[in-house]
Amino acid sequence: MANIEQKLQSNLDAKLFALTLDRRAPKPLHLQLADALRDIILSGGALSGARLPASRGLAGELSVSRMTVTTAYDQLLGEGYLSARRGGGTFVADHLPHLAPPRGVKPRLPQRSADWRPFQPGLPDWALFPHRIWARHLERSWRAPAPGLLAQPDPLGWFPLRAAISEHLSAWRGLECDPEQVVITGGAWDAFDIVFRAILAPGQNVAVEDPGWSPLRHMLTRSDITPVPIRVGTDGLDAHDIARDIAAAVVTPSRHFPTGVSMSLARRVTLLDWARSTRALIVEDDYDSEFRYQGQPLPSLSGLDGLRNTLYLGSFSKLLSPALRIGYLVVPTAQIDPVRSYLSLTGSRASLVPQPALATFMDSGEFATHLRRMRRTYAKRQACLVSALAPLADDLVVTPDPSGMHLCCPLAPALADIATDKDVSELGAAHGLTVRALSSHAVLPDPPQGVLLGYAAFDEDALRESAEVLTGLIRQVHVR
Amino acid sequence: MANIEQKLQSNLDAKLFALTLDRRAPKPLHLQLADALRDIILSGGALSGARLPASRGLAGELSVSRMTVTTAYDQLLGEGYLSARRGGGTFVADHLPHLAPPRGVKPRLPQRSADWRPFQPGLPDWALFPHRIWARHLERSWRAPAPGLLAQPDPLGWFPLRAAISEHLSAWRGLECDPEQVVITGGAWDAFDIVFRAILAPGQNVAVEDPGWSPLRHMLTRSDITPVPIRVGTDGLDAHDIARDIAAAVVTPSRHFPTGVSMSLARRVTLLDWARSTRALIVEDDYDSEFRYQGQPLPSLSGLDGLRNTLYLGSFSKLLSPALRIGYLVVPTAQIDPVRSYLSLTGSRASLVPQPALATFMDSGEFATHLRRMRRTYAKRQACLVSALAPLADDLVVTPDPSGMHLCCPLAPALADIATDKDVSELGAAHGLTVRALSSHAVLPDPPQGVLLGYAAFDEDALRESAEVLTGLIRQVHVR
Repeated sequence: MANIEQKLQSNLDAKLFALTLDRRAPKPLHLQLADALRDIILSGGALSGARLPASRGLAGELSVSRMTVTTAYDQLLGEGYLSARRGGGTFVADHLPHLAPPRGVKPRLPQRSADWRPFQPGLPDWALFPHRIWARHLERSWRAPAPGLLAQPDPLGWFPLRAAISEHLSAWRGLECDPEQVVITGGAWDAFDIVFRAILAPGQNVAVEDPGWSPLRHMLTRSDITPVPIRVGTDGLDAHDIARDIAAAVVTPSRHFPTGVSMSLARRVTLLDWARSTRALIVEDDYDSEFRYQGQPLPSLSGLDGLRNTLYLGSFSKLLSPALRIGYLVVPTAQIDPVRSYLSLTGSRASLVPQPALATFMDSGEFATHLRRMRRTYAKRQACLVSALAPLADDLVVTPDPSGMHLCCPLAPALADIATDKDVSELGAAHGLTVRALSSHAVLPDPPQGVLLGYAAFDEDALRESAEVLTGLIRQVHVR
Repeated sequence: MANIEQKLQSNLDAKLFALTLDRRAPKPLHLQLADALRDIILSGGALSGARLPASRGLAGELSVSRMTVTTAYDQLLGEGYLSARRGGGTFVADHLPHLAPPRGVKPRLPQRSADWRPFQPGLPDWALFPHRIWARHLERSWRAPAPGLLAQPDPLGWFPLRAAISEHLSAWRGLECDPEQVVITGGAWDAFDIVFRAILAPGQNVAVEDPGWSPLRHMLTRSDITPVPIRVGTDGLDAHDIARDIAAAVVTPSRHFPTGVSMSLARRVTLLDWARSTRALIVEDDYDSEFRYQGQPLPSLSGLDGLRNTLYLGSFSKLLSPALRIGYLVVPTAQIDPVRSYLSLTGSRASLVPQPALATFMDSGEFATHLRRMRRTYAKRQACLVSALAPLADDLVVTPDPSGMHLCCPLAPALADIATDKDVSELGAAHGLTVRALSSHAVLPDPPQGVLLGYAAFDEDALRESAEVLTGLIRQVHVR
């Protein structure tokens, strides 16, 4: 046994000491080392359990700084290839037989490039996630946890976070609510699910915007609720178009998804009147309106209503990171009890682990600083994309957008005469671009034609390059 | 403005410096200080934003150690009453107007005593949660996060955690599976929900154990699936009792909830045969069988089946803390695709924040150490409770249980002749005890009569005292 271990050990040491890192390569040394070490591990599953050389020793052998080695080790610790043991030492992780892919197959580890290509909409830039500050808040909140954190969790969420969200909504969205009205959820889907199961009932009809967010229709159908599509014009949804027998309407008044239009004040008032006279509920999905670049936003619909017939739904996926899986629901006082009973029965799906850290992150002012920073960055990226799309002026209607994380560009006549938005989307997909077709978000006949171009998650170079690729592709359509 | 701030400041300083802490009181000094500071904050909302005196200064004024002060500050930081600002300094948190309750009303912060009384079953002891180690893993995994942590999350969960769970199941539950078959969920409810919505269909019938876990019946009904109760005897559920037209059976073979019986090998084989011949699925809910005190456990039903027709469902709520809200589902290879499509549509409800920390916590061996430690502690607590219940030998059938976190004690004739288990439960509730009635977990006629006594979350003193209270109450029943 000792023989095998010794062999593994000297094998690993030999491979590591034999590495050559390229100081002139654009890739930083620690990434070169991490990649090489990952390859060694993936190519020889039998190394599991082998101890890595001490960082000082390896740094000496490779003539790099010790920091380069520890950074590379940390990276692979985070990815699960290595594990640290008590009493010190870093080892090739034990579960590697599973991680090692069949020969010739690429490892199925999360690849950013695979599922996050320009112009994927609705994603924040992960590179700007304030991970050091976040790690500090996490560490502080769990090192000496408040008693409530380890007791049976309140199904409505961690109270200080509910209070921090209430403060945030008052400051950023003109929505005044009591922390008791805020319900922490496991993301936006869970928030909708709570509305559909705790407040609405199977067999009811719910008005949804068309075009709109397609998963919503599936969710409703799966809850045995019928989605009734209502066409959205340039002023937003018109409540006069809503038929009778509708129990609720789900709307995105601040910034309609996906077209980006803002519901006019007149239509907001009409919608609230409709809800009051028919005793229907309005679910306001306010998914990214913190990112506003010009002018004053209209206050939230829920704020206008005083949370009488409206529920307000928000999430941290776009503001901070989709990794958090934290959303929230603000409910009228009358709905607190049904939601509490439902969540007491099922338990919350929202992990308590991030909640105290998010609460102190918000209370410390660092969250607001982060939002302002993201807002400046995203505004620049949008401007960059708008100007990079200038060569397509005859093909796409590109208008600067006062808010949001993506542009919705209708097809201009020159392009619309020869292609559909789905053609453009397919062409993009074949060339490494995620160009969503506006019409694929609609179910009513004669949907509007356009493309969604997300810009928030991509730096200006990537946006310019991708716009160039898109321009080339659309030129090809003309030539064909 | 400066005047107001100065006034707040001197007001707070004055109140703090005027405190008297009682060195002879049983309550530790840091808790006395934390309670006093919380009272000051709650009684004067206008203090929001005021800076707390430096710990050294306050320690000097109160003649206590600096550690006493920093521990008290940390406590209130964790509870959200205080906030730390960049550049140093501790301040009364900004959102306090909301935290301050109306006069004369106690603050609605989570109170352990309110919802976590002896003999509440199914809860781990939060005081033994390894929070320092946990905080370290959280900090490490987020300080320099692996790229995948900030990209669009894999809807099936963080791969290294799925690999660690696969290792754990192999070592602890005799279940061999590929990490690809492991799906991370937002707790057990979410795991069931995924089964009901992604794999089963509305209108189907599902066999459930009777007595059994009551929320399961509600969940099924809400998903428009009909629960069909099947009586559970001393050998577990008998598949011969399952009628036709049943799409799936949800069972707890390792340790039936709530009676604690283990399904015999013969009945396991019958159940697997039933599933194969009727093409039904079995959902194995293995909720606490890691806590085994005597003998060898039977391997999991899913292991016996080789995950052909079984899904295995586990959670960290009982093993670690309900705060994590992390559960998992192990699915047959054929079910990976439907589950992935469903979760790609809805997004996962499981936060990524705890997942890398939990993965390294498991890989480092600290999780297994924690489980072994808990197992020793809970075994002692069970033994303590069994002996403390000796005076009730004529009233309750108390048998040592080879596993689990609660005892299920049938009513013995002397008590059963004069009271129901629900009578005992109500009497307990009126005297600060959570004594669940076995019959309240059943829907079929003539349910068994017994009481559930959870012991895992309570120390031996609490168990002895509570057993004494229960003994007194049952004596009263005899006298009445």
